[in-house]
Amino acid sequence: MSKVITDMAISLDGFAAGPRQSLDKPFGEGIFERLLQWRFDEPEKHAEVLERITDAGAFIMGRNMFGPGRGEWDLDWTGWWGADPPYHGPVFVLTHHPRASIPMEGGTTFHFVTDGIDSALTQAREAAGDRDVSITGGAHTVNQYLAAGHIDEMRLHIAPIVVGKGERLLAGVGDPKLTPVEVTGTELVTHVTYRVG
Amino acid sequence: MSKVITDMAISLDGFAAGPRQSLDKPFGEGIFERLLQWRFDEPEKHAEVLERITDAGAFIMGRNMFGPGRGEWDLDWTGWWGADPPYHGPVFVLTHHPRASIPMEGGTTFHFVTDGIDSALTQAREAAGDRDVSITGGAHTVNQYLAAGHIDEMRLHIAPIVVGKGERLLAGVGDPKLTPVEVTGTELVTHVTYRVG
Repeated sequence: MSKVITDMAISLDGFAAGPRQSLDKPFGEGIFERLLQWRFDEPEKHAEVLERITDAGAFIMGRNMFGPGRGEWDLDWTGWWGADPPYHGPVFVLTHHPRASIPMEGGTTFHFVTDGIDSALTQAREAAGDRDVSITGGAHTVNQYLAAGHIDEMRLHIAPIVVGKGERLLAGVGDPKLTPVEVTGTELVTHVTYRVG
Repeated sequence: MSKVITDMAISLDGFAAGPRQSLDKPFGEGIFERLLQWRFDEPEKHAEVLERITDAGAFIMGRNMFGPGRGEWDLDWTGWWGADPPYHGPVFVLTHHPRASIPMEGGTTFHFVTDGIDSALTQAREAAGDRDVSITGGAHTVNQYLAAGHIDEMRLHIAPIVVGKGERLLAGVGDPKLTPVEVTGTELVTHVTYRVG
């Protein structure tokens, strides 16, 4: 059955991004390389994990994950990922500012949803059919979906770093019922999959 | 070689205790049973983990872990653990208020250290000989030792709960070098051992 899943890379102290996110530093200061060192240094060890991250029929992301802009759209901006983003399917971007959909190469299309997380989820489920819907981030977006009880499976990729400040996963999510169902890792990361609810 | 180790039970969002710790609720409100459910419900599955928690030659704890009192000592208070505490060795309690040592049954003796964490560690190392020194908690005490670079191994026992507020492990510890070296778990807890430094 189709699930709503999320994959989040976080620091051991729970941050998904550092402070002061920007065009040059989409994950904020001093965190990107360290949070994802396992992806850069030993991708072959995490091949299955990495494959699952984009194995969904539709995706939802917050506007801050789509780009560094705020307010009215810069229509030249089409995401961080170049001409052929890794999603290869519909991506619903949560925003307060309407914008026409953007078809990209390789099957990715960015749609912009201005009427909230429930609407985005309804549209993503419809688009995904039998496949999973992935809440791709950032932390604030995942926290909203967790708080609303919409997430079925949360896969954390915990880097062994302490960041101290930034955007925190699991903030303001209430008291979700979590059950760890799989745990693996290397010296660069600990993967824990939680069943939610 | 003798190591300085710590075992900490924390929530997934990083709390070692909830708010409003008291005599009735030493871990604060609404957290004790949930944080340690794995110890109560399936101790046999965690026999090795539990045995390692008290396998040290000397122990250090903060005063708030020793008891609910603050300020001048209530000399009737000899800890939460009854006549025969589980340490079976010297326990150095960090405090600002001098107090005579308390020998207990089973080999535990509580010593009270008023001149700081370095002094307590020196005394604990001396007492432990070739065995490890365990920083038993609470979070504030462990954070101090982490920040000072004194801890060699940190064993986290991560309960699948979100607490939202309380006393946070890893707060104010700077940027310690951490390497996960062992990860195991059940549906009630994830154990991750980090080499520190």
